[in-house]
Amino acid sequence: MLDGLFRPRSVAIIGASANPLSIGHIVLRNLTDYGFQGPIFPINPKTAQIRSFRCYKSVLDVPDEIDLVNISIAAKLLPAVIEECGKKGVKFAIVHSAGFKEMGPEGVKREQDLVKMANGFGIRIFGPNSQGVQNSAPEVSVYANFTFVPMKPGNISIVAQSGGVGEMLKLHLHNVGLGHRMYASYGNESDLTMPEILEYYGKDEGTRAIMVQIESFKNPARFLEVASAITPKKPILAIKAGQTREGSVAVCSHTGSLVDQGVMATAMFRKAGVLEFRDTDEMIKTAIAMSSQEPPPGRRLGLVTNTGGPGVQAVDEAITRGLKLAVWSDEGKAKLRAGLHPEASVGNPVDVVATGGPEHYKLAIETLLAEKDTDMVLVFFVTAPFVDLDSIAARIKEALATSKKPVVAVIETSEKWYSLIKNLRAGGVPVYEFSEDGARALAAMAKYSDIRARKVEPPPELKVDKAKAQAIVKRFEGKGAYLPQIDAFELLSAYGVPVPKLAVIASDGDVAAAAKKVGFPCVLKIDSTEVVHKSDAGGVTLNIKDEAALAAAYKSMRDKFAGKKAAYVAMEQKPVGREVIIGLTEAPGLGSLVMFGLGGIFVEVMKDVIFGVSPLSRPEAGEMMRGIKGFPMLEGIRGEKGVDLPAMEDLLCRVSRLAADFPSISEMDLNPIFAYPAGTAPAAVDVRIKVR
Amino acid sequence: MLDGLFRPRSVAIIGASANPLSIGHIVLRNLTDYGFQGPIFPINPKTAQIRSFRCYKSVLDVPDEIDLVNISIAAKLLPAVIEECGKKGVKFAIVHSAGFKEMGPEGVKREQDLVKMANGFGIRIFGPNSQGVQNSAPEVSVYANFTFVPMKPGNISIVAQSGGVGEMLKLHLHNVGLGHRMYASYGNESDLTMPEILEYYGKDEGTRAIMVQIESFKNPARFLEVASAITPKKPILAIKAGQTREGSVAVCSHTGSLVDQGVMATAMFRKAGVLEFRDTDEMIKTAIAMSSQEPPPGRRLGLVTNTGGPGVQAVDEAITRGLKLAVWSDEGKAKLRAGLHPEASVGNPVDVVATGGPEHYKLAIETLLAEKDTDMVLVFFVTAPFVDLDSIAARIKEALATSKKPVVAVIETSEKWYSLIKNLRAGGVPVYEFSEDGARALAAMAKYSDIRARKVEPPPELKVDKAKAQAIVKRFEGKGAYLPQIDAFELLSAYGVPVPKLAVIASDGDVAAAAKKVGFPCVLKIDSTEVVHKSDAGGVTLNIKDEAALAAAYKSMRDKFAGKKAAYVAMEQKPVGREVIIGLTEAPGLGSLVMFGLGGIFVEVMKDVIFGVSPLSRPEAGEMMRGIKGFPMLEGIRGEKGVDLPAMEDLLCRVSRLAADFPSISEMDLNPIFAYPAGTAPAAVDVRIKVR
Repeated sequence: MLDGLFRPRSVAIIGASANPLSIGHIVLRNLTDYGFQGPIFPINPKTAQIRSFRCYKSVLDVPDEIDLVNISIAAKLLPAVIEECGKKGVKFAIVHSAGFKEMGPEGVKREQDLVKMANGFGIRIFGPNSQGVQNSAPEVSVYANFTFVPMKPGNISIVAQSGGVGEMLKLHLHNVGLGHRMYASYGNESDLTMPEILEYYGKDEGTRAIMVQIESFKNPARFLEVASAITPKKPILAIKAGQTREGSVAVCSHTGSLVDQGVMATAMFRKAGVLEFRDTDEMIKTAIAMSSQEPPPGRRLGLVTNTGGPGVQAVDEAITRGLKLAVWSDEGKAKLRAGLHPEASVGNPVDVVATGGPEHYKLAIETLLAEKDTDMVLVFFVTAPFVDLDSIAARIKEALATSKKPVVAVIETSEKWYSLIKNLRAGGVPVYEFSEDGARALAAMAKYSDIRARKVEPPPELKVDKAKAQAIVKRFEGKGAYLPQIDAFELLSAYGVPVPKLAVIASDGDVAAAAKKVGFPCVLKIDSTEVVHKSDAGGVTLNIKDEAALAAAYKSMRDKFAGKKAAYVAMEQKPVGREVIIGLTEAPGLGSLVMFGLGGIFVEVMKDVIFGVSPLSRPEAGEMMRGIKGFPMLEGIRGEKGVDLPAMEDLLCRVSRLAADFPSISEMDLNPIFAYPAGTAPAAVDVRIKVR
Repeated sequence: MLDGLFRPRSVAIIGASANPLSIGHIVLRNLTDYGFQGPIFPINPKTAQIRSFRCYKSVLDVPDEIDLVNISIAAKLLPAVIEECGKKGVKFAIVHSAGFKEMGPEGVKREQDLVKMANGFGIRIFGPNSQGVQNSAPEVSVYANFTFVPMKPGNISIVAQSGGVGEMLKLHLHNVGLGHRMYASYGNESDLTMPEILEYYGKDEGTRAIMVQIESFKNPARFLEVASAITPKKPILAIKAGQTREGSVAVCSHTGSLVDQGVMATAMFRKAGVLEFRDTDEMIKTAIAMSSQEPPPGRRLGLVTNTGGPGVQAVDEAITRGLKLAVWSDEGKAKLRAGLHPEASVGNPVDVVATGGPEHYKLAIETLLAEKDTDMVLVFFVTAPFVDLDSIAARIKEALATSKKPVVAVIETSEKWYSLIKNLRAGGVPVYEFSEDGARALAAMAKYSDIRARKVEPPPELKVDKAKAQAIVKRFEGKGAYLPQIDAFELLSAYGVPVPKLAVIASDGDVAAAAKKVGFPCVLKIDSTEVVHKSDAGGVTLNIKDEAALAAAYKSMRDKFAGKKAAYVAMEQKPVGREVIIGLTEAPGLGSLVMFGLGGIFVEVMKDVIFGVSPLSRPEAGEMMRGIKGFPMLEGIRGEKGVDLPAMEDLLCRVSRLAADFPSISEMDLNPIFAYPAGTAPAAVDVRIKVR
């Protein structure tokens, strides 16, 4: 538990200083300014007093117990003070000091030594090179951090790898009158890791939603586990910095290059039910809505406005983000018509017109919230000189009082009447200044509703021949090479991945048996690491119709490649189906990612691919298939039959299970797989597998 | 000229009132509050005085000339006052009053009568149902508008169909300390149209950039003409409301349904060099940058920051939006290394670190701006307790003073130090609060640089047989039907669109001549309005190898469709090439749009299509081809040869010219066109053309 960090009973500041620009001073000031509820002990051997605090030479001189220390002294001085902290029984040390991992190999060593020493004393290190933590819970009120954004109680907790971004998240919650609950910017993550903090937030009753900013994952598997446990209960909103290589990496993935952390983050976020954002402002605006509103029961939006244009903008954005326009019942429509001005429009958006007053707004909002077909409401209001602003605010708040459906307001006004916005915000109404922002926040909430409602199940129990697979993989471990075709197909087959019938032809004498085994038409292929572009080199013969033709093809190919180290494989020739690709990419710290896409240009040109974390559950495999833009081609278009989706889902699960069971498989590329209409099993007709 | 509207020498207010909630009162107050430079004449037969103004019973009683009247009286009273205005010699009437077109057929008639009457007197009507105009030029300072956003001089002019959105655009310029130049929200557009206003802004020396919001185009052709003339000199930023049906319409386009105005707007904007936005806030933030910064000479961005995370966010967004990271020269790097803290990072972003001071910022910005390889700079600054904020602002402003390259700042600070932001803004530095916003504004400016630099040329002179085409089209005009295949292909052929050789077979006796004309292999097709799905019905025979086979195919098909009204066409069978689709969609008020995409699923599933306004110039045709996601398939991928791009460009120009020359062609669908490698002309192998 991290109570000693986020709920310390006492704090010591090692490196406390009278210099108002020093970290040691600022932390002391922040702790006192925000009313830390425990005692504070400045530590500085050269000073007797800082501000009105008695100063101690060492933590050992402090008469009371110390839960937490903030350390901002030079890196080289740390071992001595950590030893003292150890003797004193300190539980957590926030190390602001830089000069560790970020400085190269020597720093890495210094950091490792620090953690080892601290852990030996039972101290957990937060940092080094970290900004610190905050907890606004009134019974604690700890601002153990050297920055400037004001702290007041709120229900959004924040963990950010970048202190600069973390501050920004707090700042903009603060700017709309909201506070935040807990905050941590963890720097080098040498000991205490981000997932631990996330887990703590997840269990904190005062935290309603969590914002996360990540630059790189130290322990992605643990993040996935922790986040997955939280999202069914409270939303996690996340930004992964450094996403722009994603596109190029997506396409390279089946070449076996290591996966970009951005691609991995997106796959993990989807699996864990984390809402991913690319725009900081948008994430904050969503958090603002989540701070006071419940997720909507569905996707149907109702709008109320007093002017047309901004309503259209809200609709445009809402539809783009996957919301739907609600339709009112006849009773609802009648109620609106009876209660609003005759020139009001009672469609969706409801336009109460510029002369619409507080009672009109109240009626419209209440009517919409009572509609069974309406899941959420966006209220737009441009200040009109005809309208009493205090009453508008009061009526809007009354209208929302008893509803569990989310409502957001978009207010267009100048600074003169800005009190209206403050008034609504103080009443717990999320207020935005642009229609698009309101629509986006609601759409994100609807997405979270989907996450809470989704079916989460473990990866399926599959009938596989693990021992057989193990035997094959073992034979190649340590060679770092591609498997011969026959072994690659055998390996897939052991895991129930449907493959064509195969037979190796090592001499003329094998032809008859091969013919019998694979049948006709068949294909003859060379299998050699010396021949990369098989087709171009004449190493593939298609449409072999009978045994004689197979014998001839074998003879001709063997002669052609005489001198090369090669095997020859006869393979059942599958009819051409819908081309699908499944690839595997290593994801260090997590295992591997499975890539899914349609064949050829759909991956290479249209970049229409999706990644999942192996092993996949059935719903995850299904979600992946539905997640590509080309999915209608699998479903069937223009009267064409679609492919056997459950069979494809099963195939994805099997490949991902194989990847998860054998981490030494570093690359796998099933390209193409032919998918066929329901009733015909798909078949992986070409495959490359590499074992580390 | 609209001087009487935007630079009136005098204004009368018909319907002026002492009621502070009335439009007539508010306009009077706004005119006086913002210091209108001419005389104001309230008109109200029932009142002697409003505020401190003498009131007149009629404009006819006013002793001086009147350029402009604002009218807010009931619609039915308008004819009488318009007559008086006519007699008085009034030039422009802003009609705020509602009760016209928006009220149905009766209102439409009332509106038409009003305009006819006014124009008869030489009066131009602005509105009705309009908000009014503003011009902040100090020598005029006219706020002839009933809304609330403060007016102060600026250099961005705004024209918005929605008054609510128009206010929002002004409001958010105002919120960052900028004013606006001119403003108009034109309501029903009964007489004076948006393009006229746009043209006026274009010629106004005090207008540096223009923001436009449009709900529907009354005269798209005129908009296109006016906007195209402005954008080489000053940027136009635009939002077209109601864009969300775009996707579905794009796919339906080749079914001949009328085009969505959203698709038309996007095509027009691209042709005219207008920057299109979907997000109001983003448009405003771009305008803010354009208000003081010059467009960048290229796409290479340099960044300066004092903390890492927000720098990464700016890079992510910049790359996503098509900017590139600049690389410094060795001299530049040395200068940075010499002048900054030793722990500073001199890559891109330059990180001056948290203790970096004003001189460090100045040095970094100046160094980057002096780099030949750097086209623009984004400066991020999070207020650190170590730094003197006034000096930071002063040094940043000094660094920018002599540069023509654009610079934007992103400042992260709390309200306590908000004066820093105000200070920079007052110095003409665009300041944002999120990194992404700064990056987006710069990317939009770079896009405008491309627009200014682009090659604009007229549609090419093409050798076409217009007379022949005319004769074909004439024969079908008034029938509203699809052309028989032979005529459709002839029509294309007359315009130089390459088509297969064709021959009609009306009887067994025609077979020999047809065989001679089209050669082998050939295709036989039924051509009948009674047979829609030709292939499915057995109305297409492929791979006909010789004359005997053709005769047999003809006989068999004729027997099969005995009783149907049908013709039979023999057609040269072209080898399969890269499938391309060109479609035509009517665009009322503009002419027609040409759609371009790759064949089949690329249009239907991937929705990878683009629209252009016919007739196309060669650069426009080229830009369209390059504008689809699947373009690499035309260029050639995986060692495959690409298609003959100039030939495709030519084909696009020819189809678009045909569409432009014959407006009665209501539908045209060349699907597929086979495109081949350079040297082989593409061929439109199937075509549907409908004439109105």
